[in-house]
Amino acid sequence: MAHKFFSDTKFTEAKFTETIFTHKIFTHTFMTLKEFLAARIAAIDAALDRLTPPETAHPATIHKAMRYSLFAGGKRIRPILCLQAAEAVGGASAPGGGMGGDAAGAMEAGCALEMIHTYSLIHDDLPALDNDDYRRGKLTNHKVFGEAMAILAGDALFTLAMQTLVKIEGLGAERKLALLEELSFGSGTVDGMIGGQVTDIEGEKQEPTAELLERIHRAKTGALLKASVRMGAICGGADAAQMAAMTQYGEAVGLAFQIVDDVLDVEQSSAELGKTAGKDAAQGKITFPAVYGLEASHRMAAEECARAHAALEMFGERAQRLHEIADLIVKRKS
Amino acid sequence: MAHKFFSDTKFTEAKFTETIFTHKIFTHTFMTLKEFLAARIAAIDAALDRLTPPETAHPATIHKAMRYSLFAGGKRIRPILCLQAAEAVGGASAPGGGMGGDAAGAMEAGCALEMIHTYSLIHDDLPALDNDDYRRGKLTNHKVFGEAMAILAGDALFTLAMQTLVKIEGLGAERKLALLEELSFGSGTVDGMIGGQVTDIEGEKQEPTAELLERIHRAKTGALLKASVRMGAICGGADAAQMAAMTQYGEAVGLAFQIVDDVLDVEQSSAELGKTAGKDAAQGKITFPAVYGLEASHRMAAEECARAHAALEMFGERAQRLHEIADLIVKRKS
Repeated sequence: MAHKFFSDTKFTEAKFTETIFTHKIFTHTFMTLKEFLAARIAAIDAALDRLTPPETAHPATIHKAMRYSLFAGGKRIRPILCLQAAEAVGGASAPGGGMGGDAAGAMEAGCALEMIHTYSLIHDDLPALDNDDYRRGKLTNHKVFGEAMAILAGDALFTLAMQTLVKIEGLGAERKLALLEELSFGSGTVDGMIGGQVTDIEGEKQEPTAELLERIHRAKTGALLKASVRMGAICGGADAAQMAAMTQYGEAVGLAFQIVDDVLDVEQSSAELGKTAGKDAAQGKITFPAVYGLEASHRMAAEECARAHAALEMFGERAQRLHEIADLIVKRKS
Repeated sequence: MAHKFFSDTKFTEAKFTETIFTHKIFTHTFMTLKEFLAARIAAIDAALDRLTPPETAHPATIHKAMRYSLFAGGKRIRPILCLQAAEAVGGASAPGGGMGGDAAGAMEAGCALEMIHTYSLIHDDLPALDNDDYRRGKLTNHKVFGEAMAILAGDALFTLAMQTLVKIEGLGAERKLALLEELSFGSGTVDGMIGGQVTDIEGEKQEPTAELLERIHRAKTGALLKASVRMGAICGGADAAQMAAMTQYGEAVGLAFQIVDDVLDVEQSSAELGKTAGKDAAQGKITFPAVYGLEASHRMAAEECARAHAALEMFGERAQRLHEIADLIVKRKS
């Protein structure tokens, strides 16, 4: 999978801070954004802990395996996007903060997204797929619990995500179903996450074309990121116009995220990146630099970032954090 | 997994017929039941085909892999139980038959159950788990499409099951959510299918006790079979008393199914069984004969069958097929 910056890389919180500071021009904004993100991550981690069976629940092994990857240092970008989208459409009690005032179901929806993301990482890391031994500096699930338990832990997190949405309190049945629709189709085979993984795997054997590149990333990375903001918008009670705008933001941010990810893999050293650089080219992956070249890729990322900002216009100050997150995604150095 | 008779074994339709004929005492009933089941299976297969993306849908490989296992000769016991439960509680237009007169959503719910069951079989067959090369006389999914695609095909069928329930037409949001709750918890880690698989895997290293045996099968086999009749009852608009009765029927049939499965593994030859006999003992599996002995196991199966019949009393002739299915499960010879 390709959500490197927020959840898939091996860099530490310290590295994260350092990264923020490199963006001189945004330093002021980023300082407050960093504090905000840290508080959000803490609240999301607490909710994930509340929503996941304890390690003592029988059978203990599977719950240990689920929790191992669920709490392996993810940056929680999907839950954060979900929560901020709910706030932007007016679903939160306090603009700018949203702490403790989130729209009904937004936290549970965000956690369900993180569970789906985590299950996909566990399965992606398996020997039969990417065969990764480490993720974020920790042994991958199958290296700790074995392949059988890792496969089942992924399945179990998928199941838990569905259970979490079904059991949301204080949200109407229609909205819960809308959330289940977004999550199940966003992670599916047709223009969804699984479809993107398959296209990516098969793409390594094909000619890199713009059409194939777009198809892979719209599905593999884009679908779940778009679902993140749309699910937040649903919890916040978005009208059609707000949903359309949030969808455009989600698509733009998702694409920008992927372009920057591909560019960093080429431009950065492994040390700067906190992971093996140049891995895409070595694996024959279809990337934006490979198809468009570096200069055009940089331009495209900036264009998507601008498109993301434009999509947020109607939301005013309630979308402040979404603006900052879009900038952070494009300006990041690892 | 352990639903050998209806979906996991390698015997053919001919073998099925032969099996039916061995139950002299039920011959008449079973003849008509056999025709009924054949018609049900045909209708369920047609619905599964309608609800699953075509092999031409992009990316084609994953849809080919999904369909390969979905149409590998399953006997569709879960969809059939779901449809008959809906009919028993009064949800079908025509008692005894139900063809074309099924309660709204019952067919989709049944297909979602079959998708979940199929995903669990694909993952169970993987080298890291049971490492089976054949299922029902056909190569297992990973032997045809490779491990990576088999893992993703299982994930994809899980996703499709959720999508199928979300998109049911003509059923209220509350009932759809009730179906999603049954399916997601029935296939989960706490007293659900995945939990049962884990307990079973770990059980091979433990002392066979009655408590452990019950815990394994209530979850691994029982949870989804119970969910099958409960989901049908939901679609049929069951009241509390009907739901309680249907739950008792599901639990009894699920347990009887497992007991008979264990007994056949000991008593039958591989030829009669259509699969390797004595595999449980060889693998050190915890079984009913191992814990209670053969004689007591036979008695327990008959008791569960009687409990299943008793649970159906309130439904009268509308439950005819459920009565027959309970008998078939206990009297089967393979």
